[in-house]
Amino acid sequence: MKLHGYFRSSAAWRVRIALALKGLSCDQVAVHLRHGDQRAPAYLKINPQGLVPALETDDGDILTQSLAICEYLDEIQAEPLLLPGTALERARIRAFAYAIACEIHPLQNLRVLNRLKALGQDEDGVKAWARETIATGFDACEALLEGQAGPYCFGGQITLADVFLVPQMANARRFGVELRWPRLHDAEVACLDHEAFSVTHPDLQWDAE
Amino acid sequence: MKLHGYFRSSAAWRVRIALALKGLSCDQVAVHLRHGDQRAPAYLKINPQGLVPALETDDGDILTQSLAICEYLDEIQAEPLLLPGTALERARIRAFAYAIACEIHPLQNLRVLNRLKALGQDEDGVKAWARETIATGFDACEALLEGQAGPYCFGGQITLADVFLVPQMANARRFGVELRWPRLHDAEVACLDHEAFSVTHPDLQWDAE
Repeated sequence: MKLHGYFRSSAAWRVRIALALKGLSCDQVAVHLRHGDQRAPAYLKINPQGLVPALETDDGDILTQSLAICEYLDEIQAEPLLLPGTALERARIRAFAYAIACEIHPLQNLRVLNRLKALGQDEDGVKAWARETIATGFDACEALLEGQAGPYCFGGQITLADVFLVPQMANARRFGVELRWPRLHDAEVACLDHEAFSVTHPDLQWDAE
Repeated sequence: MKLHGYFRSSAAWRVRIALALKGLSCDQVAVHLRHGDQRAPAYLKINPQGLVPALETDDGDILTQSLAICEYLDEIQAEPLLLPGTALERARIRAFAYAIACEIHPLQNLRVLNRLKALGQDEDGVKAWARETIATGFDACEALLEGQAGPYCFGGQITLADVFLVPQMANARRFGVELRWPRLHDAEVACLDHEAFSVTHPDLQWDAE
């Protein structure tokens, strides 16, 4: 398999974590988002959405959207399951991942911050927007974990929720968010102790700057 | 079951469609977003994210995030499946739904448009932002359907992709987007011919204005 990604993209990091958890090996191809590689015709042929990540299977099929890729990986390689438990438990895990993927990340990614700059927001204004987005979203995430045992988001097993939490925590730090969510913090600490999270960290990727 | 929603919320409409397709009956509770009901303490107890929809099961469990609710409904009531086919086919259907749920909808919902107004954007500026978001996103969605047979997004069977497309098309019209995507248009026409989409239309809900 081949993963088209970018070291700093939190969406690409999610997929790197999922692959590592499942012990699936994968070549990495760098799509430099700040240089605009994602809008180059060659990449648009791979992913017409102009986004990373995109996963190329050994059969040459292309999968897009990190959430869809993670669900796919969970279906083709069940061990360890990212979505364990009953339908209700799986719905709770998914809701947490979506609270990040749908409510936080889309509002603080590079594309949107550039649009805000085009509307006249300066660097400080854009960073304040990102911080507010993340803080509001993490308030909701912390609440979604109420009553759930640790050390991970949903108990003693790493799930899709953790795969989405850790890259978003890194974004939060990058924007200078004051981290005030004890449950999210504890889950992050537990995850970073696991190789699948530490070796896939953006700073350790070959295209890191 | 009980669905906490709002007639005009496209996220709530997705769940109404999924319930109708599966023939599941559900009481509807209106959470008036423009009046701020979603931030009332009573509702925050149900969904601390302050968002609609939230689904209350007969056992009193609360599910949030429309995507998670749809996946849950697909797991507890398989007929008709919203995610049919192989792992690859399911990944394609999910990617299309996420292209709407993660790339379009979060950037044009009421909460974000209000934040843009707070930054000094006037009504026209806010609508232009929504139109640009939807048009860019629909370009990607149209491309994702390349090579897929109709009449629905992914062949002869209604899938999660259609459940997400139709409410987003209604939003597009509301913001005055010029609809120029033949494949999306055809899929919408096919869907609206089906009762699960037509009877759940926002204009026909009891809380519609």
